[in-house]
Amino acid sequence: MGLTFNPIHTTDAGGRRAQLRLPHQTVETPVFMPVGTAGTVKAVPQDTLESLGAEIILGNTYHLYLRPGHEAIRRMGGLHRFISWPRAMLTDSGGFQVFSLSELRNVTDEGVRFRSHLDGSSHFFTPEHSVDVQIALGADIAMAFDECTEYPADRARAEESLRLTMAWARRSLEHFRMHQHEVSWHGEIAGSQSLFGIVQGGMYRDLRKESAERLIEMGFDGYAIGGLSVGEPRDLTLEMISEVLPILPAGKPRYVMGVGYPDEIEQYARMGVDMMDCVLPTRAARHGLLFTSEGRLTIKNRQFAEDQGPPDPACDCMVCRRYTRAYLRHLMQAGESLSATLNTIHNLAYYLGIMRRVRASLEAPKAN
Amino acid sequence: MGLTFNPIHTTDAGGRRAQLRLPHQTVETPVFMPVGTAGTVKAVPQDTLESLGAEIILGNTYHLYLRPGHEAIRRMGGLHRFISWPRAMLTDSGGFQVFSLSELRNVTDEGVRFRSHLDGSSHFFTPEHSVDVQIALGADIAMAFDECTEYPADRARAEESLRLTMAWARRSLEHFRMHQHEVSWHGEIAGSQSLFGIVQGGMYRDLRKESAERLIEMGFDGYAIGGLSVGEPRDLTLEMISEVLPILPAGKPRYVMGVGYPDEIEQYARMGVDMMDCVLPTRAARHGLLFTSEGRLTIKNRQFAEDQGPPDPACDCMVCRRYTRAYLRHLMQAGESLSATLNTIHNLAYYLGIMRRVRASLEAPKAN
Repeated sequence: MGLTFNPIHTTDAGGRRAQLRLPHQTVETPVFMPVGTAGTVKAVPQDTLESLGAEIILGNTYHLYLRPGHEAIRRMGGLHRFISWPRAMLTDSGGFQVFSLSELRNVTDEGVRFRSHLDGSSHFFTPEHSVDVQIALGADIAMAFDECTEYPADRARAEESLRLTMAWARRSLEHFRMHQHEVSWHGEIAGSQSLFGIVQGGMYRDLRKESAERLIEMGFDGYAIGGLSVGEPRDLTLEMISEVLPILPAGKPRYVMGVGYPDEIEQYARMGVDMMDCVLPTRAARHGLLFTSEGRLTIKNRQFAEDQGPPDPACDCMVCRRYTRAYLRHLMQAGESLSATLNTIHNLAYYLGIMRRVRASLEAPKAN
Repeated sequence: MGLTFNPIHTTDAGGRRAQLRLPHQTVETPVFMPVGTAGTVKAVPQDTLESLGAEIILGNTYHLYLRPGHEAIRRMGGLHRFISWPRAMLTDSGGFQVFSLSELRNVTDEGVRFRSHLDGSSHFFTPEHSVDVQIALGADIAMAFDECTEYPADRARAEESLRLTMAWARRSLEHFRMHQHEVSWHGEIAGSQSLFGIVQGGMYRDLRKESAERLIEMGFDGYAIGGLSVGEPRDLTLEMISEVLPILPAGKPRYVMGVGYPDEIEQYARMGVDMMDCVLPTRAARHGLLFTSEGRLTIKNRQFAEDQGPPDPACDCMVCRRYTRAYLRHLMQAGESLSATLNTIHNLAYYLGIMRRVRASLEAPKAN
């Protein structure tokens, strides 16, 4: 059994308070998952992530495949052990990075040939290979190999891209079912890896619907909505999520990939999205953008040079309890790496705090 | 009263186990002081430094004067408050960085004119100005403004340099005595800042002796030996320390600046040096050099690619308890900033661990 998903309460608006039981961790949902690209949530030590209450983090298959290599990670007992993260993990399929980072891509029905952004070496990814790599990494949740349809895409392009993604989804699932027992922690930890399918279809409601229905027929452990937050206006993102959510089975987790801003993750969670991930809080932090209850702060601005208030007066994270805006500004001005660490800790605390409050508000009203 | 220095036990070899009471912290000596150049021990959060047992850290006057500026720090209540470090601090005089980092230096008896390495702006430092800046920063211990004699220096050059340093020491002390009550925490925290004089004299025993005797006449709160570890062979360093230590008053702390390797700090502590600082453990960490009970590790080496042992099997620091050599190598290979953080934490734990063991060995034998 890969996962069990236990809804505790569902609101009229569709928002679900649930528990997602994964082999390495029971995750309280809705959940925001910090992105740990190359086996590290950039600039933050693992014990700090634990203190922040992160129950599941992402790893990027593309990055880890290139460096240090999935075979090396398999030999070392899988990604959890390699990076010393005992809680839950999810790996993406590598598809998104192949299409956004690599050079000289050549896509066929069979798969995609690309050159590494690191050293120009040539690689060929198929759905089967992506699954093999993800089994070697051994995250609790793996993702089907898909093509993230670009925005804008005309209907013919969206249809063709969807055709590819659906064919790849079936191949991913078949290969996964045959090989999932090969995960390095098989027999050591109860349970097995899960595989999620990814709904694509560009910005076409009927294609999105068709995509969801076909994936459900195949029977994945959970369902993701991909290809959003790729440049489209917010109301289109919302429209696509609204179209797909009611179709997805109530007893499986629903994951919207790559979102979003603080108000977005709250909005989607209240609509019934159970899982989200985004580089925004971590990447923005490294550029000095802090999310706070008073809005966004560009901490490098001169106005903060002698501001002795905490980054966010309403936040009780370890950064806001100890440091001032003036100090964070100084660290950034001076190019000190502690800047990325402290900014990231705060932004993650802010995002995880939002989800904590959303979860509380989705609980059933207490009986009197 | 700036400081009190209470020797608990002195060995036949001259090693002293003592307590150094400073306004912000009682420091167990001999002590190694991590260097926090620009208001941060690079890559390490303050709570981690506390967990490591660091009781006193350094700040660099030159760096903080240039950015964010000593007046801004004074307005914010001093360096302790600005960087949120409640324990003891020491600031250097800025002299060493003026001579090693800045451009277009012009030294006269009055002081030194230099250009900032950051923006080329022109600045003039005198002993009085260095003391003013250090009072604004408000560390527990300030240092007299000196000229660090380069190595090699012929006798005439060493004599001339010493003449300047002695004149500047007197001016530093006079100015400090007149203005030390201006420290921002005056009246809030019991005690006052202390000022240490710095013994120079190049590699000439008689100049070193003369330097120490003249500083003692002036009457500082503690005495440092500067101008060592500037390229000379180790036996010369040792010879200069051996010459000076017996002259220095037993009731005042003795500080050797800018040393050293793990075996050096242990050796000097056993000879009677109470305080040392060095960028070595922190700077080497950022370059992937780890100090361990098994010797030095260049963590980036291929041999560690799948080494699942801890960085140092004999170390129980938070890094060695959680992470493998393979993971630290990966972080460095991938250019991840967590690499600097984890490497630095281990190296500091290693240095502070050495001093902890040396302190224990300098205690009086337990009565049976």
